[in-house]
Amino acid sequence: MKNPDNGIIKSKPYQDQIHNIIFEADTFWGRFFDISLLVAILLSIAVLMLESVPSIDMKYHKALVIMEWILTILFSIEYALRLYAVHKPWQYAKSFYGVIDLLAVLPTYLEIFVAGSHYFMILRIMRLLRVFRLFKLVRFIDERNLLAYSLRASWRRISYFLFFLLLVTTIIGTLMYLLEGGTPNSKFDNIPVSIYWCVVTITTVGYGDISPVTGMGKVLASVIMILGYSIIAIPTGIVTAEMTKFSRRKKQQTQVCKACSEEHHLPESVFCHRCGFILDDD
Amino acid sequence: MKNPDNGIIKSKPYQDQIHNIIFEADTFWGRFFDISLLVAILLSIAVLMLESVPSIDMKYHKALVIMEWILTILFSIEYALRLYAVHKPWQYAKSFYGVIDLLAVLPTYLEIFVAGSHYFMILRIMRLLRVFRLFKLVRFIDERNLLAYSLRASWRRISYFLFFLLLVTTIIGTLMYLLEGGTPNSKFDNIPVSIYWCVVTITTVGYGDISPVTGMGKVLASVIMILGYSIIAIPTGIVTAEMTKFSRRKKQQTQVCKACSEEHHLPESVFCHRCGFILDDD
Amino acid sequence: MKNPDNGIIKSKPYQDQIHNIIFEADTFWGRFFDISLLVAILLSIAVLMLESVPSIDMKYHKALVIMEWILTILFSIEYALRLYAVHKPWQYAKSFYGVIDLLAVLPTYLEIFVAGSHYFMILRIMRLLRVFRLFKLVRFIDERNLLAYSLRASWRRISYFLFFLLLVTTIIGTLMYLLEGGTPNSKFDNIPVSIYWCVVTITTVGYGDISPVTGMGKVLASVIMILGYSIIAIPTGIVTAEMTKFSRRKKQQTQVCKACSEEHHLPESVFCHRCGFILDDD
Amino acid sequence: MKNPDNGIIKSKPYQDQIHNIIFEADTFWGRFFDISLLVAILLSIAVLMLESVPSIDMKYHKALVIMEWILTILFSIEYALRLYAVHKPWQYAKSFYGVIDLLAVLPTYLEIFVAGSHYFMILRIMRLLRVFRLFKLVRFIDERNLLAYSLRASWRRISYFLFFLLLVTTIIGTLMYLLEGGTPNSKFDNIPVSIYWCVVTITTVGYGDISPVTGMGKVLASVIMILGYSIIAIPTGIVTAEMTKFSRRKKQQTQVCKACSEEHHLPESVFCHRCGFILDDD
Repeated sequence: MKNPDNGIIKSKPYQDQIHNIIFEADTFWGRFFDISLLVAILLSIAVLMLESVPSIDMKYHKALVIMEWILTILFSIEYALRLYAVHKPWQYAKSFYGVIDLLAVLPTYLEIFVAGSHYFMILRIMRLLRVFRLFKLVRFIDERNLLAYSLRASWRRISYFLFFLLLVTTIIGTLMYLLEGGTPNSKFDNIPVSIYWCVVTITTVGYGDISPVTGMGKVLASVIMILGYSIIAIPTGIVTAEMTKFSRRKKQQTQVCKACSEEHHLPESVFCHRCGFILDDD
Repeated sequence: MKNPDNGIIKSKPYQDQIHNIIFEADTFWGRFFDISLLVAILLSIAVLMLESVPSIDMKYHKALVIMEWILTILFSIEYALRLYAVHKPWQYAKSFYGVIDLLAVLPTYLEIFVAGSHYFMILRIMRLLRVFRLFKLVRFIDERNLLAYSLRASWRRISYFLFFLLLVTTIIGTLMYLLEGGTPNSKFDNIPVSIYWCVVTITTVGYGDISPVTGMGKVLASVIMILGYSIIAIPTGIVTAEMTKFSRRKKQQTQVCKACSEEHHLPESVFCHRCGFILDDD
Repeated sequence: MKNPDNGIIKSKPYQDQIHNIIFEADTFWGRFFDISLLVAILLSIAVLMLESVPSIDMKYHKALVIMEWILTILFSIEYALRLYAVHKPWQYAKSFYGVIDLLAVLPTYLEIFVAGSHYFMILRIMRLLRVFRLFKLVRFIDERNLLAYSLRASWRRISYFLFFLLLVTTIIGTLMYLLEGGTPNSKFDNIPVSIYWCVVTITTVGYGDISPVTGMGKVLASVIMILGYSIIAIPTGIVTAEMTKFSRRKKQQTQVCKACSEEHHLPESVFCHRCGFILDDD
Repeated sequence: MKNPDNGIIKSKPYQDQIHNIIFEADTFWGRFFDISLLVAILLSIAVLMLESVPSIDMKYHKALVIMEWILTILFSIEYALRLYAVHKPWQYAKSFYGVIDLLAVLPTYLEIFVAGSHYFMILRIMRLLRVFRLFKLVRFIDERNLLAYSLRASWRRISYFLFFLLLVTTIIGTLMYLLEGGTPNSKFDNIPVSIYWCVVTITTVGYGDISPVTGMGKVLASVIMILGYSIIAIPTGIVTAEMTKFSRRKKQQTQVCKACSEEHHLPESVFCHRCGFILDDD
């Protein structure tokens, strides 16, 4: 298998056909493969969940294990085919999806050697991430872009805000521990637990497993809740501002007038609204 | 009743008058009919609710059943009149409101044959949907449009976001099960229940029926809450951006080009963007 | 006290001075009166709250009653002075604040005749509304306008949304009752209680006094929570869109170019940014 | 150490080098110092938290006390060096960070004299505020500005809104006390507790430690929840509007007039709004 200098890579037999089926979704078999894969992934997640329910696991343990092995072998074949189909297997294996695909088959094999270790479950649930690849089936690209753009654009602001939140919860949690700690029936036993309570409260989750029992504690808790109610507005404001910017930017990037360089046109414009010059649609 | 080729449909006697009363709200009797229908629907919902309260149902069972039958007969008459009044009864019967109207009368008749089946309650509560038709009484059209427009425009983005949320909750739920499962007093008994807990937490509902008891569990829960607090911003951002766009678009419709009657101009436009004609600012 | 036709109303002695002190806040005594009134109102609210705490009421019942009587007599004198100070007493008495002022003194007197009726408490708490009048002390007019404007502008949209919400909660509540009702340990005893649970859940309050116990119930509850999480975005979107519009409108209403009628200027502009003509500041 | 009139202040030996290391982050040792300080602060917070957990404190009490003393002595040296390094020590000592730095060392010394007073904990947690100074390490200036700007710009609106909220919760809390107070199993024992419940509910925290038990109480509670659900939109709207304004203002700063260096132009400006000079679009 000589690889000449002119850069042309000789294909292995059927490599292109397999590549089309596994990596693309344009042909009938490509779509069929994608849907089968989706079903297999969801099945494997279902098996994992049922295994975790003691009453079901006790009855159907054998069936679930067999199911898991069948799916693992199918995933292994798929992984091998992917390695075969791509021109640069090592590059694929190192990519995000390559690692995810490998992690999808590893845990079941590992469980043979390290029997009973149910911590591999977290690796098995990672199979769910493979579903993202199938989004090429449906047209969610624009939505994915918006989410990715908004999160990337507001990431630093939100993380700064989260640090600020952490600081507030730590200080208020300590204050609450000093107010309530030691009171009978109170569950503010130590500072970490008080900070946990403060996070539960400020995010408006409010389990109620810990709640203030003294008058002063209730007053401080009320202040924190109203505070949390107000600062819930901050991340919303950050993300909303980014999304508004995004949708405005997208609309504006489409056309530029060649006469007056005006850029802000309506999507369906034919003439420039400022100088009346005709617009080119590209 | 010969139906000639020229497309004119001979009216049945009083058909137009009945149509005016039942389907329109311009005349006195039209409005009277609409309000009576509203009262009848609300009454039938009240009967349904009272039936479900054992202490009340025991005392007044007979009165409630009689009430339900009176209302059902009234609704049956109304349904028959609607079928009579429209020119194309079959088209009406297949329409959304036609089905809803039929479902409003069916369950009570069906209960004669399939006695005691309280699952028909869900059909009876569907009568509430008929209230939507009465919105022509009050002018809510603009509001309905805004809601419908925003939901339609942001539907794909929100559903993509919801899928993302589901994925996060599944992975975190599994992680939580591995951390807390098996600990005494912990209620993280299996993965589905842990995912349920994760949904309860990330949406900031926080019943408190399940809550972490170990230190590590509380740390992870805190992370999830703060995460949920941040991503609550995303759907808000999506919908807000759409609504802002909607109200901006509406504002743009004030100017109309005198040459081509184009209505969608930017606020600062000088020339029509479609035909290049100069715009009048009034 | 002849009232001539030329429309001039003869003042009662000291009427203007009293009016200045009671109704205005420009003079020293006017401000002094306003602050005293604020203190008196807050004191009367504090008395009301302490009365409602059995352990405190038992000990200090007499002191609280005396305090309440002193405050009531002060409020009565103030009410009489207000009636004396205004030119048209009857018009004042019928106004919003006139009624609030009267309600502030009535309950204590009524309690002599209708002894022990603690339902007058709700009238006494209404004294708090009088604080609004004192906002002329601090400059909150712009903020009040924004809130009032946003609420008025979005009132119909929000009420349409709330009706929609009510409909959803009723239908889902019934569904939940059919799923969970009758299960041991389940508290979904009847439809009204299930609707209450649905409101508690969809608004993300989540007391946890009622929560699903069956698997199917938990699945449906999860769906509702994620639904509630998404539709929490709607009122936020409505109000935010209105507020953005408000702040934009305010900024834009300041200047119009006399040469090109351009209206969108920055607040500190001196020349028109479109045609270079000088701007008038009025 | 004569201080001549020409304003030049003679440096103490090594003063500039120490200042560079402690106050700046440009050099290697400056960065090293900042990171060491961050570690020391976090360590001291960890010690504080571990001290508050009885089971850990009992075992490692001695180690924690020693750790605390080591850190306090390090902070003391740092404080002394800061005083030495700055040109105007008294100005630094009075500044915000000067006070925070002093408070970081005081509590441990004070505890010698006022033994066992665990209220000094709140002073020790204040050390966390010193982390803010280290933000010069990472570039968060823009984010800090945005948060500070939005909060300052919306402070009065939010405080007006919070006052409004307080008023609503007080009135509804009283109403709820009248409805539920005295009912067996109900925990609405007095007005302050009912107001606390109302805050817990309207902010959608919902602990569930107090929840309505009567039918009427549940109806009123539902109304409050839906109300809270709607008014949660208001602070979000306020902050979002400010943030959108901020990001729009920032975008306007890209163009600079070549005649008068004015920077704040509208995106579509052709002429400078201040001096009328034509603008270059790049």
